[in-house]
Order: sequence, then C-alpha cells, then structure tokens
Amino acid sequence: MNELRKNLLHGRWIEVLSESKRPLEYLLPPVKSSGEAACVLCTGKEKETPKEVASIRRTGTMPNTPGWWVRAIPSFKPIFQVEGNLDRRAAGIYDKMNSVGANEILIESPDHNIKPEDMGLEQMVKVIKLYRDRITDLIRDLRLRYIFIFKNSWLDPWQENFSHPVSFLMATPIIPKKIKDELDNAKQYYDYKERCIFCDIIREELRVGERVILETRNFLCFCPYASSFPFESWIIPKKHSCDFHAISNEEVEDMGFALMSMLQRLKVVFEMEPPFNYFLHTAPNRVPRRNQWHTLCDDYHWHLEIIPRLERKSGFEWGSGLFIQTTSPEKAAKYLREV
Amino acid sequence: MNELRKNLLHGRWIEVLSESKRPLEYLLPPVKSSGEAACVLCTGKEKETPKEVASIRRTGTMPNTPGWWVRAIPSFKPIFQVEGNLDRRAAGIYDKMNSVGANEILIESPDHNIKPEDMGLEQMVKVIKLYRDRITDLIRDLRLRYIFIFKNSWLDPWQENFSHPVSFLMATPIIPKKIKDELDNAKQYYDYKERCIFCDIIREELRVGERVILETRNFLCFCPYASSFPFESWIIPKKHSCDFHAISNEEVEDMGFALMSMLQRLKVVFEMEPPFNYFLHTAPNRVPRRNQWHTLCDDYHWHLEIIPRLERKSGFEWGSGLFIQTTSPEKAAKYLREV
Repeated sequence: MNELRKNLLHGRWIEVLSESKRPLEYLLPPVKSSGEAACVLCTGKEKETPKEVASIRRTGTMPNTPGWWVRAIPSFKPIFQVEGNLDRRAAGIYDKMNSVGANEILIESPDHNIKPEDMGLEQMVKVIKLYRDRITDLIRDLRLRYIFIFKNSWLDPWQENFSHPVSFLMATPIIPKKIKDELDNAKQYYDYKERCIFCDIIREELRVGERVILETRNFLCFCPYASSFPFESWIIPKKHSCDFHAISNEEVEDMGFALMSMLQRLKVVFEMEPPFNYFLHTAPNRVPRRNQWHTLCDDYHWHLEIIPRLERKSGFEWGSGLFIQTTSPEKAAKYLREV
Repeated sequence: MNELRKNLLHGRWIEVLSESKRPLEYLLPPVKSSGEAACVLCTGKEKETPKEVASIRRTGTMPNTPGWWVRAIPSFKPIFQVEGNLDRRAAGIYDKMNSVGANEILIESPDHNIKPEDMGLEQMVKVIKLYRDRITDLIRDLRLRYIFIFKNSWLDPWQENFSHPVSFLMATPIIPKKIKDELDNAKQYYDYKERCIFCDIIREELRVGERVILETRNFLCFCPYASSFPFESWIIPKKHSCDFHAISNEEVEDMGFALMSMLQRLKVVFEMEPPFNYFLHTAPNRVPRRNQWHTLCDDYHWHLEIIPRLERKSGFEWGSGLFIQTTSPEKAAKYLREV
C-alpha cells in the first residue's frame, strides 16, 4: 500500500508508491497516450470506466450512459485509496500515515478532440460547475484535509495520460506543502495588517496596472509580481472569498470566460498551445481558523494559477529553491494583454 | 539590472532577469555546449576566461597560466553582480533588492573529457578543497548571506553550458528558500528535543540500516526516508558540524572517496551516467543563531545532496508541492548498496 511520509526538514509530506520503479524503467521513452479509437473517456464507452461519481447530463438520461456534458469518475490507477483509516504513526523517528484520499478524473467533454479554449463558454461553465460539485461533495469527508483540482494539458510523467480533455482531482489527508506555505504566510500577513494579503495584491495590481492582463466584472487576471515560472498568471475573484465552492452561478460564467480567454491568449502568444498546467488553490476542508480565529476565513482567498511548462527548472533552482524568472512578469503581462 | 523580488505568499525570493526572454525563444531547441576544440576552460586557454579568483596549482606557476589542477573563475554571464549595495526597498506592497552576489565556475580538472567519478581520488580531493577555499574566502563579505555550491552533470536550461567538468558557486544576499526551510525546521526540532535533527537521522539510519548505502570512517551515505526524487542520496558527516568549510584534510579525503563511490554506483545502477545534480547544504554566513542562541550552531549539520534527474515533476507536484516518490528509498538504497 502507498504511504505518506513526512520530510521533517521541509515540513513536506511525500507520497511513496508501494510499487517501486526499477532503475532502467526511468530510461524508457514515455508511454504515448492512446488515440481516439481506443479512448474509453469518449461518450459511448461509459461502461468501460469506473462508475461515475457525478455528472452533468441531459434530463432523463441515466448515470453511466451517454447524455452527459461533463463526468467525474474515480481514477483507473488511484494513488490514494478511498477506504480505510489514516493510522498516523511513527516509523522510528519519522512520521507516516496511510495514503487515504480520492483521485478522480474530471472529463471535460464527451468530444475527444476539443481543446478547453475552443469548447465554448457553455461547456466551460459546466466544467467549472463540476469542479464546484465535486468539492462540495468531498468536503464532507472528515478524513480529507484538502481537495486539489488541476489540469495537465500535455503528457505528464506519472499521471494517467489521456488525449481526451480532462482535469484531475486529488483529495488528500494532509494540506500539501505549497498550499500550507500560502496559508501560513497569508495568516501571518493578516495577523500583522488585519487585511487579506490577496485583497491587497488585487488592489496593488489594479493601481499599478503593468502586470494586469484582463479584468472582468468579477475577476482579475494578472502575472504575479514574484512568480516562479515565466508567463505564470492568476485568475482571482475581486470579491474576497476563501472557498472556491461558494462561487455563484454568475461568477462561474464570468470565470469560464476569463479562463478561456487566458488559454486563448497563451496560444496566440506562443503561436501554438504551449504545455501548461492550472491549479485551483482554495481553502482546506476543515480549516481550523474558520472555527477558531476568524469566522469567515478572512485571511485566505481562492484563486486559479496557470503555468505554461516552458522550461525545466535547473539544478541550482531545485537544490536551493531560489527560482530564476527569465521573463519579467511585466513583460509577460504585456504580451498576454496585447494579443 | 537583475533584481531579487520576494514572493510574499511563499516567503521565497525570486531572481528576475532584466533581459526578458520573448515567448518564441522558449520554443527554440536548447543550445548545445561547445566541444573540446572551442572550450576555453581547458588548460592553455587561461587568458580567454575572466581572471581566476583562486586555484590549486603547481608551486612556481603563475595565476592565469597552465599548471593548475583546479581553478575558480567568475561566471561569463553572472546573474548576481559583485559590486553595489543591496538597497532593500519596497515596490508598492512588495519587497525587492539589488541582485548583489557572486557567480563562479569551479573548473574541476584541466582535462576536458574526464568525468568526476573517473578523475581519481587525488583530483577529487582538490575539487573539494577548492569548494572549501571559496567558501572560506567569500564568507567574509557581509553582504552575502549564503554560499551555494552545486554541480550539473548535464545541460541545464539557463546555466552556462560546458562539456568541461565544472561545478558552480552562487553567493546570494538572501538565504534560499530550500535552505531556509531546512534551517527553520531543524531549529524547531532542536528547540523541542535539544538534539540536532541530522544527528538523530544519522543514528536512526544506522540503527535501521535499510536505507544505508555506504559508511566510511567519517561519512554516512544513505537514501533519505522522505526524499523528493527517486534515487536521491545524501553524504553527511557522522560528527556534528554546521559548517562545511570547517572540514579537515583527512575528512576531505574521505568525502572525496564517498562522493566518487556514489557517482560510480549511480553509473552502474543505470548502466550509464544519469543526468544528476549535487548540492552542498551548509550553514548560512552570518547565521544569527550562531551569535544569539547557540554558540556552536548546534541545530544545523552540513551535508551533500545527490539527485539524479530521472523525470520531470508533474503538474500536480508543482502545483501542490506534494511529491510522488516512484522508487522507495529502501529499494533505491538496496540497488545502490549492492552494486
């Protein structure tokens, strides 16, 4: 069984797979994803996937049959298992726990060849509503501390690879390191300033303007001041909210427009669809601060981070954690704003 | 001029280059390093490099002439500049400072085609002595907070690329994020346990044994319990010491043996030299704790981390900071121990 182990020196949980890869397996060429003919995520193949856990579908159609626009299914090769207890325990001086959680594939369209930026606003709105539905459902499982939704546009090394348009969901019994850093630093800022750091960032970006890409009724799209990746951008609600799943239908529509626009802009700027990821950063499930310190989770603010995967991080960057930004956020925003 | 910017949400400084890459530049194939004929790092070409800042050379030979075994020169394209003040300042609500520091190339051999694992113990000892000399020298510059020495075995995206065997040195006015995390967590452990966490890890690994690769008189080589990369290993002195540059000549020799052995083991296990990095993690320059809290820097312990670059991190890992370990440290250690 897979297990979660804590790296005491970085306060970081690591997932160790029980089936270890042998050395020479790392040197094999990456597995190609299957084409449309063999794709089990297409409509009509519903019986060949694990049973759906949710879908948005035409009235009157049955689960696991055609008629859906978007559909969530458990992962074929889950890294986290749904059943069992966490069983947190010591391993000598170290800490570990069972790898309890959920892995889901969020199928974004019945159509195999559609790209997210081309699927149309109506479909994109359904994708975002599926994100909202899955979080609203899973948040009730008290073993889970975090629900992480993300998208890989291209092949990813260990992720199940599909040429079908999909997003992924990982629900984990720990708060992942990068989110925890954000929560801790945002809380520290709030304790000092009594203001949400994200709200301050939004005001500052609107005041300065040079890193802004797009502003809609509810959202701001911008390149963060000290981002780690070239052409990294964020979509953030202008109104304070810590929980993505509290998003209103009107906001979903506006967010769908912003997300499609951002992906289209990347495509134009790079004269192709660059490999990219996006990540939804939202508040953890049972955030203690929600009950203990601030009733409304005043110090965190959900957002979506979009990262084109343009280069490998260098040895220096991995070993030190000091990242080199090869395109200034101001320049990147200018490219993305002006297309 | 390049600048350092602080990411307030991750407590992470980012180096933003003043010359921004344009979007399409990211799609160009990586620049090949020049071959031996054009290599200016070989012996005989000393006049074509920036003037050496240190070398270990035959008695009676002059700087910047042949006769050296190892040689340190400033970088051709420095990211940090030696001159100037830090000028820490606000940029709206954000923080930035000048990119003051040092970048050096540490040439490991006059011979172009030698690999570190084949250069022989005598030469490897000189390489490690050069590391020690450079830190001992730069540590006196009070603007510098950290001196980071590392090696890229293969092409790295933005690093100057040489087919000649080299290590690199980056001296920075901030403590890089990954080191800072280590320092903070080690201090927290020390405050709680009144023991060095690294010393505890050494004792635990020797007790358990299954992650140990090699033990020498002064060093332990092992695969850490919750490492981020498959086949990651550490070389750590068994005797407590926070400062790498306090290493004795006898220890240098022993470390040279351990390092060569580790690199040879990787080569055998992967049936080729896998791309790898190694990083020296040592205490920061003016570590406040040295003066304020513990007189002897009891809570940090220098070590060398060796990381084969076997796979790209996935989108999930980048976005969440939760890493997936595809080969358990116990299995990796077994492979590396038994060759």
